[in-house]
Amino acid sequence: MPTDESFDLGLISPVSVGRDEAVSDAAILAALVAAEAGLVDALAAEGVAPAGVSGSPLRAIDLDVPALARDAVAGGNPVIPLVALLRAAAPDEVRPWIHRGATSQDILDTSLMIVAREAVGRIRADLARVSAALGAFAAEHRDLVAAGRTLTQHAVPTTIGLRAANWRRAIDRALVRIDHLELPAQLGGAAGTMAALAETVRASPDAQRRQNSVEPADTPGSGTADARIGVVVQGVRRAYADAVGLRHLEAPWHTQRWPVTELGDALTQATDALGKLAADVATASRTEIGELAEPTGGGSSAMPQKQNPARSVLLRSAALRAPQLAATLHLASAAASDERPDGAWHAEWSTLRELLRLALGATAHAADLAEGLRVDRDAVARNLAATGGLIVSERLGVALGKDRAAEVVAQVAAGADIRDLVDPELLDPAQYVGLAGLFTDTA
Amino acid sequence: MPTDESFDLGLISPVSVGRDEAVSDAAILAALVAAEAGLVDALAAEGVAPAGVSGSPLRAIDLDVPALARDAVAGGNPVIPLVALLRAAAPDEVRPWIHRGATSQDILDTSLMIVAREAVGRIRADLARVSAALGAFAAEHRDLVAAGRTLTQHAVPTTIGLRAANWRRAIDRALVRIDHLELPAQLGGAAGTMAALAETVRASPDAQRRQNSVEPADTPGSGTADARIGVVVQGVRRAYADAVGLRHLEAPWHTQRWPVTELGDALTQATDALGKLAADVATASRTEIGELAEPTGGGSSAMPQKQNPARSVLLRSAALRAPQLAATLHLASAAASDERPDGAWHAEWSTLRELLRLALGATAHAADLAEGLRVDRDAVARNLAATGGLIVSERLGVALGKDRAAEVVAQVAAGADIRDLVDPELLDPAQYVGLAGLFTDTA
Amino acid sequence: MPTDESFDLGLISPVSVGRDEAVSDAAILAALVAAEAGLVDALAAEGVAPAGVSGSPLRAIDLDVPALARDAVAGGNPVIPLVALLRAAAPDEVRPWIHRGATSQDILDTSLMIVAREAVGRIRADLARVSAALGAFAAEHRDLVAAGRTLTQHAVPTTIGLRAANWRRAIDRALVRIDHLELPAQLGGAAGTMAALAETVRASPDAQRRQNSVEPADTPGSGTADARIGVVVQGVRRAYADAVGLRHLEAPWHTQRWPVTELGDALTQATDALGKLAADVATASRTEIGELAEPTGGGSSAMPQKQNPARSVLLRSAALRAPQLAATLHLASAAASDERPDGAWHAEWSTLRELLRLALGATAHAADLAEGLRVDRDAVARNLAATGGLIVSERLGVALGKDRAAEVVAQVAAGADIRDLVDPELLDPAQYVGLAGLFTDTA
Amino acid sequence: MPTDESFDLGLISPVSVGRDEAVSDAAILAALVAAEAGLVDALAAEGVAPAGVSGSPLRAIDLDVPALARDAVAGGNPVIPLVALLRAAAPDEVRPWIHRGATSQDILDTSLMIVAREAVGRIRADLARVSAALGAFAAEHRDLVAAGRTLTQHAVPTTIGLRAANWRRAIDRALVRIDHLELPAQLGGAAGTMAALAETVRASPDAQRRQNSVEPADTPGSGTADARIGVVVQGVRRAYADAVGLRHLEAPWHTQRWPVTELGDALTQATDALGKLAADVATASRTEIGELAEPTGGGSSAMPQKQNPARSVLLRSAALRAPQLAATLHLASAAASDERPDGAWHAEWSTLRELLRLALGATAHAADLAEGLRVDRDAVARNLAATGGLIVSERLGVALGKDRAAEVVAQVAAGADIRDLVDPELLDPAQYVGLAGLFTDTA
Repeated sequence: MPTDESFDLGLISPVSVGRDEAVSDAAILAALVAAEAGLVDALAAEGVAPAGVSGSPLRAIDLDVPALARDAVAGGNPVIPLVALLRAAAPDEVRPWIHRGATSQDILDTSLMIVAREAVGRIRADLARVSAALGAFAAEHRDLVAAGRTLTQHAVPTTIGLRAANWRRAIDRALVRIDHLELPAQLGGAAGTMAALAETVRASPDAQRRQNSVEPADTPGSGTADARIGVVVQGVRRAYADAVGLRHLEAPWHTQRWPVTELGDALTQATDALGKLAADVATASRTEIGELAEPTGGGSSAMPQKQNPARSVLLRSAALRAPQLAATLHLASAAASDERPDGAWHAEWSTLRELLRLALGATAHAADLAEGLRVDRDAVARNLAATGGLIVSERLGVALGKDRAAEVVAQVAAGADIRDLVDPELLDPAQYVGLAGLFTDTA
Repeated sequence: MPTDESFDLGLISPVSVGRDEAVSDAAILAALVAAEAGLVDALAAEGVAPAGVSGSPLRAIDLDVPALARDAVAGGNPVIPLVALLRAAAPDEVRPWIHRGATSQDILDTSLMIVAREAVGRIRADLARVSAALGAFAAEHRDLVAAGRTLTQHAVPTTIGLRAANWRRAIDRALVRIDHLELPAQLGGAAGTMAALAETVRASPDAQRRQNSVEPADTPGSGTADARIGVVVQGVRRAYADAVGLRHLEAPWHTQRWPVTELGDALTQATDALGKLAADVATASRTEIGELAEPTGGGSSAMPQKQNPARSVLLRSAALRAPQLAATLHLASAAASDERPDGAWHAEWSTLRELLRLALGATAHAADLAEGLRVDRDAVARNLAATGGLIVSERLGVALGKDRAAEVVAQVAAGADIRDLVDPELLDPAQYVGLAGLFTDTA
Repeated sequence: MPTDESFDLGLISPVSVGRDEAVSDAAILAALVAAEAGLVDALAAEGVAPAGVSGSPLRAIDLDVPALARDAVAGGNPVIPLVALLRAAAPDEVRPWIHRGATSQDILDTSLMIVAREAVGRIRADLARVSAALGAFAAEHRDLVAAGRTLTQHAVPTTIGLRAANWRRAIDRALVRIDHLELPAQLGGAAGTMAALAETVRASPDAQRRQNSVEPADTPGSGTADARIGVVVQGVRRAYADAVGLRHLEAPWHTQRWPVTELGDALTQATDALGKLAADVATASRTEIGELAEPTGGGSSAMPQKQNPARSVLLRSAALRAPQLAATLHLASAAASDERPDGAWHAEWSTLRELLRLALGATAHAADLAEGLRVDRDAVARNLAATGGLIVSERLGVALGKDRAAEVVAQVAAGADIRDLVDPELLDPAQYVGLAGLFTDTA
Repeated sequence: MPTDESFDLGLISPVSVGRDEAVSDAAILAALVAAEAGLVDALAAEGVAPAGVSGSPLRAIDLDVPALARDAVAGGNPVIPLVALLRAAAPDEVRPWIHRGATSQDILDTSLMIVAREAVGRIRADLARVSAALGAFAAEHRDLVAAGRTLTQHAVPTTIGLRAANWRRAIDRALVRIDHLELPAQLGGAAGTMAALAETVRASPDAQRRQNSVEPADTPGSGTADARIGVVVQGVRRAYADAVGLRHLEAPWHTQRWPVTELGDALTQATDALGKLAADVATASRTEIGELAEPTGGGSSAMPQKQNPARSVLLRSAALRAPQLAATLHLASAAASDERPDGAWHAEWSTLRELLRLALGATAHAADLAEGLRVDRDAVARNLAATGGLIVSERLGVALGKDRAAEVVAQVAAGADIRDLVDPELLDPAQYVGLAGLFTDTA
């Protein structure tokens, strides 16, 4: 197996480094082996392979990874050399069942889904941390009135709590998308018909007989050899999905790439939500604004006045990159000609891995960020007062009528103190936050 | 209202022309008016505006569209001049309630969701036509054996039916995504707090009283003025959603753009599925392959031998464009700083319209294509035989063992007739389609 | 010709409305006619068509645009119905020469390049206005010291002049790219061989003879009929390029789409540069920062304190959209199979038009912005002082040594006044702007 | 330094594996060290650092790469920990000059340009191989007449030579773009003013004096201390560019990212051209077409009839991915706020590396492909005849008039043999290739 040094050192991938073991070459290789081993297990479980045959020995084989990578070039994918290595090292009774009825795409698609499942588990956990932390943050600052900003300008008051509650709403929606993901196993054979495995089963009366005994024989056509074979093959496909811990679909998806694009869309929805959070934290961290600060600033020894919003910076970089990676997955799906396309499928692999890597890094940093986010209440108050009361000008129009409000604004612009012109009660920003509290409570 | 000439003539948008009334300027303008009228209706329904006030007169106003478009430039969006026109033309009793408590983004977001709802309805209907047609096509050709192709090469046999069933699976999955879409109304006020409307309600004892009478008074805090105001405002938000026929969300989504990105993702999943269909039809239409033909070929008077797969060409062009439009929606979502961002929101409008337009055109063409798709059974058979029987070579390996199979292949390559070497039964492609029938039936 | 109402009203395209006549349907139709007329002119100029035949009558034909758009759907492009209309309305002597030797792609590619030339001319002029205005702005504010910001934090001093000079450098680089664009005419015939026109010339001894008389006959092979035909055909191709005002390439580019992608890249480089400008103006316009203001703020009647950076907002929305449109052009180029691809070519049309439209709108708004950009010197000074002198902390490290500088910073953090600890001369930001003046002068 | 195993094993990056040493972590680290060493050299060359100080010792330091990568996370980039390691290991006289006047971005931008220069050199060399091979291929098959295809259908004849010549034209144009690339060094200091280095020079009378002696003193203002300092600092910037082998720009480009986007655009133009080549080769390799074959097919042991166009598949996958990576670079450029942006800059690093990696792999595979591309002349002839002579139907219209041609076509469609109806000379595809030869010769 590859050593710790064997994957991207992150020299120029700061958002992901240390967070991306789940998508390392080692993880992918382990998933490839898991797919091959799971197939052997499934064949045995359904009686196609003899009792006693098991995929376990495959999982224990020590692989020469650099050789494998080198040989992957010739075949255009790593499965062909991997199968050769596994066959060479496997016990005699296991060897004939390795990769039986499968094609490279089956193993590679399945392994990427295994890797995705592990990565998505971590991403989900970190997003849940973000959500919980933002929930607590919103509750704590539910009534902290702050300047609401539209098109860069102070508009009307809002609250720090509501802003955080809205961040959380987007995070929670991304969690819903992630929770609805279906990550299926792939097993279709050379062109998605399972012909080779059906041929194997045809030659295996034991497997057919066993299956026949448990199936009702009174379905029309269910007594035919083909029907019996179909039942066995589907049994293997289902057992394979169980063995690798992925969802069973009733037919191969080699030509329908929604499992990949829906995953890409959900990951991007997550980085979108984090990007929004980061955009607001970065803005609020500006030297002139200073309302928010990250838990530990990315400081600068030469410029001690800086408190760089380092995590927000990384989140923003991830959010800027993810949508185009997801677009590539869609393009690959849309261009997937034939029973296996001439390039579109191959465009998915690295793209999906990079998207998972970004999401892994971004969610981990976001959890740290959300759990330690700090508010400078003085800065919030100072900014809220920056327009000399005009932040509630909209209210004046409602309360005084537009004509009188316009007069007041004109007099203020001419130098008058607004407090001399209007009931001070009307000028209290805290009295003009509408349903901010309610919208915070329901997040 | 704009005349028929008032939107893109489609001179260079062939995929969409004639299919895109649902996203025309006229449709958008109607939706903007519907949003403003719906707000007046909602205010009246909840007792904030006097009984008898109604949005109906707004819907009947004849608008000077070119003037509106011109004035939209100054304000950066069409809502500001629209409100001025509506106010100028509305009856006196309606005038004060126009746009009451709303901000431009509320009206524009809502109107885009109204337009999307109409467009998605058509898209859904056409996708359902595609699905049904492909279902019938698959059933009809369930057992028509054809060459399966991977990486451009004949691999093993499959069936025309299974290929179509797989197209359908991707379409049906896109339909699921579309059916789960949530298209919400937007009403948040200047910065998402509903402060202006709350202020209006505060001055409307009638509205509060009415609301109070129907709400239980024993919830903690429910007796306070703020709580009563909140109930009324939420009532208006809910009535507004009802009035415009969109989903009610408990809080504004001005800063959380998932309603836009999920829509973009679902539309792109649809064009992905159509792109796959079109890629296969275009390939199968090639002069040398000729297995499939579109219902009416895009002919050429100068070159009568041509039967251009014109609809597939349009579908492929749409499928190539949609993912990048969806990526722009994600970028806009991720970059949405503040309570209203300084550019990201504005990047959504035309992008979403173009994506809807592409999906409208693509699904309509796809329905025509799927309903009239024709098979040339002779060409299918001729191609299936093109490798002189070697299309079942995989089967030989399973049935004869790899060594004997390799011998056979070598002898065939040296000129021998495979039928002299192998039991002809083994060479029948129809006997080596695995579970193609089953996978077709379950689509 | 289409009326003013006949193109996108810009209801939801505020960045472009009123700026995009150059890419309207009317402009595209005029360019299509210009391409057809130019071909007739070229045929006459080279003696293939009789003397006296001219494309001028075509330019005067009044076209039924809605009918044309309707018919464009059937053929998948507008050229086929356009040719039918032109032939029906043309004088008898012109009719046989209309579209002679051309294919739809020739006319459409050429017309898009004509449209692009007009649009690029305006874009270039407006970018030059931006450059000149920024040059004057930079010169005026060459020595206005301001806070330099990195990762949102005050770092070290810079000048308003240098910031503007750097904006200008990016603009000027985009101008270089634009000035190097080659926008070629397209004429290749059905599959890029010019076979049909060569056939026509073969039957035109006059044309061959005339050409022969001016060409030296002693080049090897130049005396053959094929060589003479080649000379005439190339003559027509060159005359056609002259007639439509585009560059002549020695061979058709129907399968090599760099004229489209290089155009897309240059336009995007322009919107990138404007996006950077707009990002900085929007940031500097923030209520809390207030260093810069657009010439006329996008005000809000309800919120008079707002001075929305409306043009920056539009520029940012354009800059966010352009890269994905350019990516689509690249994808279309890369997927351009065969002598005319099955979808990739069609994906270019609307995409290129939208990219031109964005660049037209963005450059026009940017010129207005740059020419009226205003500085609030008080705000600049106030912000520069916001860190209590620590904005020159890097200098302290250089001047005092790191250890002493760290001591000073620690004491300031503990409440000391930095002016009591350090020679005030060292704290003057104006003394720590390095080569800002020089870098401004050389822009 | 990282071992051979230390970068991406390419398990799922088949297009690049074995071709991407130029962009490995080892290469990036070497470039980072080269940038730091080059700065020390430049300081010494200009007399700012004492004579005898040199960057050479830095180049020899053995670095603990995993530790470096780990520490890169905290600071968000690898430069900060690298500088610490270099300072710890450097000789005493060198230590004070390490990273003097530079900021992390200077070193990282410069190192990425160094890496790009190396990668682009290889990419250029391989593209030149492609061009040369296609030139020879086109010449060899200049007169091999073949079916021209538009919208998937046989249109009119062309030649294999012309098709290849057109592939080459796109490659050569990409080479032009690559040859015009400017890859500049970056040196600007904390915010692009060179303030820290200017401060250092101010304290170095020797450096100023030396510079003064070689500069004419009669330029206005040239005698001032600031002018002398400016000359020295610019001298260091120029010497630094020389030392690292990159172009010197008169001002820092930290806020103007065209060096990155122009590189991305040129690389994508290259992959576009290769994508077009690969699309045509993949199509021509189809079992039913069989006109072209890759030098060594990606075979399948189980399916010996397959001759997968493995290199074309890889090229197509690269061409599908590159445009979106280039789009991300543009987005990063457009969103680059302030003197260093809060995320946009960070989005460039991995994206640019991946784009270089794709181009490295794609060009290397393309060179192998082009140098070994094989033609099956029998298949070419068979396909050319597939429409029973109708491939020259366009010619019949020109030669016989449209009416007679239509009659002929109708009779052929009704079963007549076209050779009985038309002068066989007219039906010879070789007589209807127009200027294919000329267009081939001029490529």
